[in-house]
Amino acid sequence: MTNEPALAPVLAQVDADLEQSLDRLMAFLRLPSISTDPAFKADCDRAADWLVADLAEIGFAAEKHPTTGHPMVVANADEGEGLHVLFYGHYDVQPVDPLSLWNRDPFDPAVEDTAAGKVIRGRGAADDKGQLMTFVEACRAWKAVHGRLPIKVSMFFEGEEESGSPSLVPYMKEHASALKADLALICDTGMFDPQTPAITTALRGLAKLELVITGPDKDLHSGMYGGAAINPARVLARILADLHDDMGRVTLEGFYDGVPELSNAQRDQWEGLGFDAEGFLKGVNLSVPAGEQGRSTLEMIWSRPTCEINGVNSGYTGAGFKTVLPSQAMAKISFRLVGTQDPDAILRAFEAHVSARMPVDCSFEMRDADGAPATVMPIDHPAFEAARGALSDEWPRPAAFIGCGGSIPIAGYFQTLLGMDSMLIGFGRDDDQVHSPNEKYDLDAFHKGIRSWVRVLDALSRL
Amino acid sequence: MTNEPALAPVLAQVDADLEQSLDRLMAFLRLPSISTDPAFKADCDRAADWLVADLAEIGFAAEKHPTTGHPMVVANADEGEGLHVLFYGHYDVQPVDPLSLWNRDPFDPAVEDTAAGKVIRGRGAADDKGQLMTFVEACRAWKAVHGRLPIKVSMFFEGEEESGSPSLVPYMKEHASALKADLALICDTGMFDPQTPAITTALRGLAKLELVITGPDKDLHSGMYGGAAINPARVLARILADLHDDMGRVTLEGFYDGVPELSNAQRDQWEGLGFDAEGFLKGVNLSVPAGEQGRSTLEMIWSRPTCEINGVNSGYTGAGFKTVLPSQAMAKISFRLVGTQDPDAILRAFEAHVSARMPVDCSFEMRDADGAPATVMPIDHPAFEAARGALSDEWPRPAAFIGCGGSIPIAGYFQTLLGMDSMLIGFGRDDDQVHSPNEKYDLDAFHKGIRSWVRVLDALSRL
Repeated sequence: MTNEPALAPVLAQVDADLEQSLDRLMAFLRLPSISTDPAFKADCDRAADWLVADLAEIGFAAEKHPTTGHPMVVANADEGEGLHVLFYGHYDVQPVDPLSLWNRDPFDPAVEDTAAGKVIRGRGAADDKGQLMTFVEACRAWKAVHGRLPIKVSMFFEGEEESGSPSLVPYMKEHASALKADLALICDTGMFDPQTPAITTALRGLAKLELVITGPDKDLHSGMYGGAAINPARVLARILADLHDDMGRVTLEGFYDGVPELSNAQRDQWEGLGFDAEGFLKGVNLSVPAGEQGRSTLEMIWSRPTCEINGVNSGYTGAGFKTVLPSQAMAKISFRLVGTQDPDAILRAFEAHVSARMPVDCSFEMRDADGAPATVMPIDHPAFEAARGALSDEWPRPAAFIGCGGSIPIAGYFQTLLGMDSMLIGFGRDDDQVHSPNEKYDLDAFHKGIRSWVRVLDALSRL
Repeated sequence: MTNEPALAPVLAQVDADLEQSLDRLMAFLRLPSISTDPAFKADCDRAADWLVADLAEIGFAAEKHPTTGHPMVVANADEGEGLHVLFYGHYDVQPVDPLSLWNRDPFDPAVEDTAAGKVIRGRGAADDKGQLMTFVEACRAWKAVHGRLPIKVSMFFEGEEESGSPSLVPYMKEHASALKADLALICDTGMFDPQTPAITTALRGLAKLELVITGPDKDLHSGMYGGAAINPARVLARILADLHDDMGRVTLEGFYDGVPELSNAQRDQWEGLGFDAEGFLKGVNLSVPAGEQGRSTLEMIWSRPTCEINGVNSGYTGAGFKTVLPSQAMAKISFRLVGTQDPDAILRAFEAHVSARMPVDCSFEMRDADGAPATVMPIDHPAFEAARGALSDEWPRPAAFIGCGGSIPIAGYFQTLLGMDSMLIGFGRDDDQVHSPNEKYDLDAFHKGIRSWVRVLDALSRL
């Protein structure tokens, strides 16, 4: 349905300009903006500069703002009227190791033919450079056709989303009035399935930490000390093994405080989606849902809290064998939170769990411990229904309001710091391999994603 | 007691030549012969060449023999009479990581002043280059004074001791008649304490393996899959935690089959040694023996079998945080064996332990699994009592027959393949930090070690 006179020529412009849109995305993807690794600091800065230049070219007043970490990019187009939206995305990307598992240099992106169609392959193709560019390109097409956007649009990009966003809250507090709009738009989520677009209205929170256990004051010869000296890797194994019970439930004291049961209405809506749990797991070579027994797979990933081990390291892990008794053992652990679970209380409960299992000769440290609570969007704002209609016009099946297993703390900050709701619309797919080797974004997701935002802008202008 | 006319001038020659002996050791230590890492293959070869050249200089017929791995060095001095001894040592060394914990380049050795006296600092200073050179220097001094050795001496050096000795058994089988002597001498063990020399007569065996567990076929985003997909790090934690019970005993089926109880006589002898268990642990910042409850610390390290985690790796372990759900989890595990414990049976029991804890969606692999049984020396050969007397003459306190926690498989191979007993005499100390950063060998251990071998050669010549 392109019966609105303003809309059809913009959609045609998107189609005509797709090759150039792709070229711009490729240039953006070539910048290795890995925010968590200090070695790539200059590259993060270059990615911010690239955004500023590209937005200026469209006619936005765009600026790079320094922080103690990586810079923020803020841009305003003053010509729009009516609803004022703030679009958020992030220009940083995840690390790429293990590099040996990539089919190409992760920062030399290309369009590849696959059995499932053309994909854009490269680190950040989906998370989040490709996604954020769907909105930028939609604005570019509107401006090219009509000279001005149909609503008032600001943009806000950070470069620390993949490394805990340390500068975000201080920056937002300091620039609250400049950032405040009527509604935030965020493009960092996925479709329900390749035919069904989605607006994500429930996001899990996150608590995370790095646990380091120290036993002997140096690595020891296991032949000389083995049997008599405490092995911190063994202490860590016990702590990690005891985090779940036999039913897959997390054992931390009070962990399930504030976890709501799914309402019957919600359960019915989700069951109506026809989620293919078997296919979801089969896609990564698994067959049995590994979470809490008695819960559906959709509950496990959307509405139940989790505890995951993200990394473990101790002793000698190189080639060959070294009969060392390690001095230290380390684990990176994260919790996905729902409802009103309190991240601080959960980190304290974890600390108690560790303390209770710490032998007299071992000490421990919790590093980089922080968290953000879960977020639920109020979908009564008319923008949600308008966007749902616009997305349904673009894709084969009607759009759905869904949950999301991941954490997008920015949505919580927009609520608590700016009093602003967020509408999360994204075009990612389950097989995009974000945070993994061979990340990709479907060319179709990119193209129809741009068209989707054109339709959403149009729909929001007619509220 | 240097009342034997042949002995005194040789001991004087050792003292006079100490500076040159040290220079030679330093040159040997500068060769980074890390056998487990293929990057150092050429350096291992250079270390073998260095030994051949040094032995030829003393007048040995020395040869380097290639293997499928690192070469063997074999040397013979034909002039001696009477008892024929084969001296064994290894010219390869352990890896040096973490490099950041060294106080100097591990392959730029130096004599350092410490509160406890002068030490030779560098990788291999104790294990085993410094130790093996005590014997080579003793032979050099004998030859310098008397022109010929007092007994028939052959030498046999390998370059794969720190990486499982893959070429050793095939080589020994092929060259059995050339290697066979009346008695093997091995210098790769320690003193009982800095005043008390020791002949090690009981050695623990070793079984080892690398366990790799695979769950999802790639690393996953823990936000998207967390809760539903099996986490192999969690599976590994359970397997490792279940290896010991609450009393510190290893839980593998049949693990204690063949483990002998200490005889009362042995227990009495060990108790008479006045071993300082508290000081032993305090030296590495520990206070409580962590092994089987109800056993003495000396039993834990000398006569009881152990299971140790030598290394663990899974997921993202670099700087910062990556909310990845790992595809794989790996652990390196070793067992110290005693009595007649069967390494193969223990590896099979471990495999059963892992299988029983493997969820349907995970698979596992055991890599580099192998082992060698424990060894006990028959001390009724008169060489043992003769050497004990010689060592007692050199050091402040009389020499002891002791056990050893480490594994020296060569002693077992000499017994089973060549029908030859071994006498293990070494001058290492508990604080030598072998297999750890800042490895050292006391200058005093090196000097008096050379003098000790001079006395042992003399004593053996008078059997």
